This record gives sequence, structure tokens and C-alpha cells, in this order.
Amino acid sequence: MTTLDPSLRSFIDVAPDSHFSIHNLPYGVFKTSANSPARIGVAVGDEVLDLAVLADAGLLDGGPLGDGSVFRGPTLNALMALGRPAWTAARSALVKLLRDDEPTLRDNAALRDTAFHKQTTVEMVLPAAIGDYTDFYSSREHATNIGIMLRGKDNALQPNWLHIPVGYHGRASSVVVSGTGVRRPNGQSKPAGADQPVFGPSRLMDFELEMGFFVGPGNRLGETIPIAEAPEHIFGMVLVNDWSARDIQAWEYVPLGPFLSKNFATSISPWVVTMDALEPFRCAGPAQTDPEVFSYLESPDDRAYDIHLEVLLQSERMTAPEPIATSNLRYMYWNVCQQLAHHTINGCNARPGDLCGSGTISGPGKHERGSMMELSWRGAEPIRLSTGEERTFLADGDTVVMTGCCERDGVKVGFGEVRGTLLPAIAR
Amino acid sequence: MTTLDPSLRSFIDVAPDSHFSIHNLPYGVFKTSANSPARIGVAVGDEVLDLAVLADAGLLDGGPLGDGSVFRGPTLNALMALGRPAWTAARSALVKLLRDDEPTLRDNAALRDTAFHKQTTVEMVLPAAIGDYTDFYSSREHATNIGIMLRGKDNALQPNWLHIPVGYHGRASSVVVSGTGVRRPNGQSKPAGADQPVFGPSRLMDFELEMGFFVGPGNRLGETIPIAEAPEHIFGMVLVNDWSARDIQAWEYVPLGPFLSKNFATSISPWVVTMDALEPFRCAGPAQTDPEVFSYLESPDDRAYDIHLEVLLQSERMTAPEPIATSNLRYMYWNVCQQLAHHTINGCNARPGDLCGSGTISGPGKHERGSMMELSWRGAEPIRLSTGEERTFLADGDTVVMTGCCERDGVKVGFGEVRGTLLPAIAR
Repeated sequence: MTTLDPSLRSFIDVAPDSHFSIHNLPYGVFKTSANSPARIGVAVGDEVLDLAVLADAGLLDGGPLGDGSVFRGPTLNALMALGRPAWTAARSALVKLLRDDEPTLRDNAALRDTAFHKQTTVEMVLPAAIGDYTDFYSSREHATNIGIMLRGKDNALQPNWLHIPVGYHGRASSVVVSGTGVRRPNGQSKPAGADQPVFGPSRLMDFELEMGFFVGPGNRLGETIPIAEAPEHIFGMVLVNDWSARDIQAWEYVPLGPFLSKNFATSISPWVVTMDALEPFRCAGPAQTDPEVFSYLESPDDRAYDIHLEVLLQSERMTAPEPIATSNLRYMYWNVCQQLAHHTINGCNARPGDLCGSGTISGPGKHERGSMMELSWRGAEPIRLSTGEERTFLADGDTVVMTGCCERDGVKVGFGEVRGTLLPAIAR
Repeated sequence: MTTLDPSLRSFIDVAPDSHFSIHNLPYGVFKTSANSPARIGVAVGDEVLDLAVLADAGLLDGGPLGDGSVFRGPTLNALMALGRPAWTAARSALVKLLRDDEPTLRDNAALRDTAFHKQTTVEMVLPAAIGDYTDFYSSREHATNIGIMLRGKDNALQPNWLHIPVGYHGRASSVVVSGTGVRRPNGQSKPAGADQPVFGPSRLMDFELEMGFFVGPGNRLGETIPIAEAPEHIFGMVLVNDWSARDIQAWEYVPLGPFLSKNFATSISPWVVTMDALEPFRCAGPAQTDPEVFSYLESPDDRAYDIHLEVLLQSERMTAPEPIATSNLRYMYWNVCQQLAHHTINGCNARPGDLCGSGTISGPGKHERGSMMELSWRGAEPIRLSTGEERTFLADGDTVVMTGCCERDGVKVGFGEVRGTLLPAIAR
């Protein structure tokens, strides 16, 4: 599936603007009612295809897929653990079953009846049990913007930044699926000019436009994942909103990094788009010649991805979200393979289902900034909304929506969206 | 069990210097052979008591313990999730079963045969599935020592340190049980005076003497654990060695904190000593009057614990480890309840089995320093060993052993040990 055949069609209707063409086939986990068990599905058009039903029908097994039991669990972890031969086999089987010229599923009305659900009728849940969540800081434009605001133009990038894919450990327990409300956190901060810290709801609430990848088989403690083998250990990607409380962050983060300013919620999109589906959109990333990177970080091939990203905001007075920023994953200085190779170079073990975030993805343009902090330049340049409202940071009731989509030769491979509404802080 | 009855005895022989008297009864998870299933046990003297066997015999159920199934799993997570009423019920039942004047178990030779194993014949594994591992930085003496080395005496403590129990997220995947070998990590560092970073095995390998607590029931996302309720959510404690690569740390940690310098391994002792067992050793911690702490951090009672700690080192030339430092958990400025209340004040959810480390526990004395970095004052004052060897940081083959024990009225409640040997780096 490294090439794109625009003539490929499914017997399932896919609208031209749908993110979920037969070229995509992202995996997710859904429930048909609040108390029913979680099931693995694939999105196609407006439908979810239940893979446990297909496995039970003997249509998703054999070879690296074994007895198909990886499709009968409540998470994608077991499929992630199986590795690329199984991922490719599953994708081939699913493309074949969904093609418009393949009768097996198309002409089996009873099977179609049990296997397909409208996406609007199911509840999406987290696609994986996330053992560890790591967040990188891999956009040069983002790190530079933040650096200029904190230290001025001449010392914007830290000395380590061009040598290391800087990252830190985030909180796995508070990774939530799109649609989950996010409560404004209480915490300590120290207002500019104040002598003493204050306690209360964060006043500087922000989003961060990110993407993240899920780890596949992973490595044993004490071993590494060499960069040439990294593609065998990256299952797929999601959109990530790494909610941030900037005032809490500024007060707490020296010297051990962000903690309560980030760990109250991280939202992800429910559909995991596989690296196989993204393969036609692989491209060169920024040059890394000044300085050269250490050999353990040298990618043997192009590992950036051309994924157009958009951030939309809907205030309580709006009836629909409106765009406030765009960006693209290809801007990232450090690519996903470099991130995973760096993460494991010291023998740290990565496990199936671990999530690695990119860090905020900003681009060169003024409207290609992936956070309110950058868009409003720390509050100095408020964003004007169509309602006449202004924003420097987020207000209670604001809904943040992020989308991402690849497109080539009229074929779309998209991520759907990650959405979350900021709820008022708990009164204390 | 808030008082101590020194006359309480078990029918199991407990040597006077044993950490595992009937007053302790720590929980752990063991295997009787490499391929056998993991089982929950309690240590008493030199024995492990298999709790699944007791549960199957109908001796550990009823009331908050339900059908006793929490003792039949491969981890302590289910018992941790049940909460304090179940913990107290289990402790009462176990104390009663093990007393020298109680015949139920004592006089049932067949049951004793299947229920007891010699500790020397079993393999201990991780006591819990750790969802998230957080590491605090709560010893004022440690933070001050490090601060003096980095910034001089007048600015030793960061401005936030006396207001916030500073912490950061660590890596859950690489928490290992005592006895696991630890490989010296490869990584980037920037030697003093160098223009450019270098890549290779860490040259400044360190241990950190810590303790950690396991979370009980925990809280839902968006809610908090008020400090007065924190004791209901802390199951027990272990010894922690938070291995650190100081040269990697110095180069990577600005601005997002330690990452590869810490996440290659964190060792814990296998036996979880419950807060009920530690209750007689609860005491006042350092005064927190300058500054006063925010009300959400005000402990309603004394929540320090008088636990004597010791670090021993055994080089390859030694036949036994020799002491190089002592300390005490009571020195910690921020106590475990303050840590948990702070961790959740923003709505971050803690889950059963989450592990929270204390940070390095140093004391006021020169030999009460919990890391090589402090003991050798960054290499300026090498430690002299009995073999004539010197150490500034750790050498390959060095074994680090940490122990911890409470004692009162001749009664010992101890943690056993956490032990690990530093293995040479993988050649690259």
C-alpha cells in the first residue's frame, strides 16, 4: 500500500469530503451503548465496521493474524503488539473486503447488518490502554516562538534543542478521548510583579495543536530501537490537544518541567490512522545540517508526513466552530522515527500502546501557530472572533476542535477531529 | 493497629533482626518458578504466606473483602482499589491467623504446607501494575545541596520550592523490582568546557535514595483528593532507587525536566509495607511556617514517618556491601499526604497502583546525603571504600543496596532492601 490508486472504491458510500475513504481505514474502539463492551472497529465513510464480527466470521485470521483474537479485545494493544506483518495483512484483508468489486461482504446482507454501525450511533472510547505517555517538543517554530517570548530573539532556542528531540513524560491516566469535557484546573501561580504566589483557577488556559503516534511491538528494557527499525514499531497516529495552564506552568516548571499545568487532561482523536495509510504522504522534513545530528538520529529515508492541520474555536455565542490557525505535521524538525530512536537510546523500554506526542506543531506563518500563547503573543495581540469577541487565552465554554487531513490526486486520508469544551473550575 | 503491642508473637519464628515481624506483614507478589503464575503473598520472618491459598480456604473473605478474589490475582492493584476498610480487615485477619495463640493455621499442617514458602525459594516480581509513576523532590536538604552546587549558597532553593511539592512524571515501564540489573545508559552529554555535545555511555552514574507510596482507590478525572482524605488513598510504601545519569541530565533537562537521564531504570523493593503497619512510627515533620503553605496543603495531623534509611555499596572487589550513607524519611519537608493532595488539586486522576516517589531523601548531616552527587560533592570529595577504592560516581559492577526500618519498644517494621548492580553500557 505504498502507492495510491485513486480508482479504488468501496461498496460503502464515501462522501467526497469524508476523511475515511477506503484508502484510510483507521482503527478505533467503540461502544454501541454505555454499558456494552468496547469493540474494535474501522471507519469507512459514515460507518464503523465491527472487526470482532469479521473475525468471528473467519474473515480476519491466518498468517500473522493467527486466530484473529486480536480483533476481539477491548483495545488495540494486542494488534499493535503483533507488528508490521500483521498490520499489513489486516489492511490487505480489509481493503479487499470493502472493495466495490468484492462480493464476500458486499453481498452478505446478514453479515453487513451485524458488522456495520453508523458512526453517529456509537460512542468512541480510547483506542488503547496507554502505558506511558511521552510528549516531545519537536517544532522548531514553536520552540523558537516560546523562546523569543521568554528570553528574546538572540537566545530563543536552548543550546540542546538542535541536538536532542527534547521530550518529557506526561500523564497517561488523564489522556481522554475527543468529546470529553475538560475542567479548568485550580492551582498555584505567581502573577507578574507579585511577591507571593496565589491559588485559584488558572487564568491562562491554552490548547496545544499536536499529533501523536502509538508504539507497536516496542523494545525490552536495556535494548534500543535503532532508527532504521523505528518504522516497524510505529503503528499509527492521532490528533492530540495537550491542554495547558500557562500560569501554573510558569510557576511550577523550574527545574523539573511541566506537571500540574499539563496533567489535568490530554485529548486525542478516536481514530488511529495507520502509517500504511499515511505512506503516500511521506515527505522530506526540514534539513538537519546545522548542526549535523548524531548518527543514532540520522533517518535513512524521508520520515516527515504532509498532514494539513487546522484549529477551530467555538465560543458559547457561536453556532459553529471557526478556524483560528492552520499548520502541517511536515514542519516538525524532529520526525517520529527520530523521537522513538532517541527515547530508547538509553535502553528505556517502549511498550505496545504507548503514546508519543509531537509537541505543539507551529509553522513559519503568523497564523500557523499551534497555541493561544503564540497566536496572541502571550496576550499582547488578542484574536478577534466573528462574534466580536476577543481571546488571548481560552474562556469557559470555549470548544476547541482540531482536524487533520492528507490529500493527493483527489484522495483524502484524514483523522476526523479531536474536540473538547473547557468547563468552569470546581469552586473551592 | 494504631498502637504497638510488643508482646504480640507469631507461631512463625521471626529472628530479632528480621524486618518482617507480625507487626509488619508487608504484601508482595512472588513466583515459585520462572513459568508459574504470579501470586500475592505476605512476608513473615523468612517465610512467604500465599494469600490465594488462604482465600481458597475461606480464611480471607467476607465484609469489605468480598469473596477474597482480590488475593487471587497476579498484582496488588485490586486490593489497593478496595480501600482502607478492606486493608484493615485483611490486616486483622492476617494478624489473627498468624498469632501464636491462634490454632486455625498453626495446627493445620496440610494448609501450612501449601500456604508457606521460604523466601529464599521464591522469585519476587513487581507488586503492582503501575499505571503512572510520579517522582517528587521533597527533601529540603537534597534540593538545597543540589542548589548550592548549581547556583551557590544564596540562591540554593528555587522560588517555588517552599510553596509547591515540586514533582514530575517519571517512566512507568522501566520501574523494576529489586535484583534487576541496571545497564549504564548511552546518551548525549556536554562535558564541562566543551563546545559541542558528545555521545556515549554516561560517565556520571548515580543512585537516589528514595521511598515511594502506592495509591489506593484514587480519584476521578476532574475531582480532587483533599488532604484530609489522602490517608484513605495511600496503601503502603516501598524503597526506591531512582537511578540517574547526571551528565545526560545536565544536558537535556532545560526546559522540560529529566527524561533519558532517569527513565532507563527505577528499582523498588518487593515488599509493600502498609500505612497501617507504619502507623506507630508516624511523627511530626519539619515546621512549615516560613512561608505558611496554602490551605490545600495543610496537613490536619502529623504525617511524617520515622523510617531509618541506609545506603550500602559493594564494588566488584568486595564480598559484602558496606554503608556509605544514612538518612530518614522524617526529614522530608513535604509529606506523602501533601504530595497526593497537590498531585490531584488540578483534577489529575490517580489510579490504584500508581507509584509516587519522594525524591532523594537527604538529611542535615554530611553522611546523610542520598546520592553520590551530594556525597562526593559533584566529584570534589571522593568516597573512600574499605578496599582502598575511591568513588565519585558509580563504577560498572557496583551493587547499590538500600534498606529501611522502623523500630520502637524492640519491635521492628522494615522494608527489606532494594538492590541493583550497574552493568556496563551496550557497545555501539
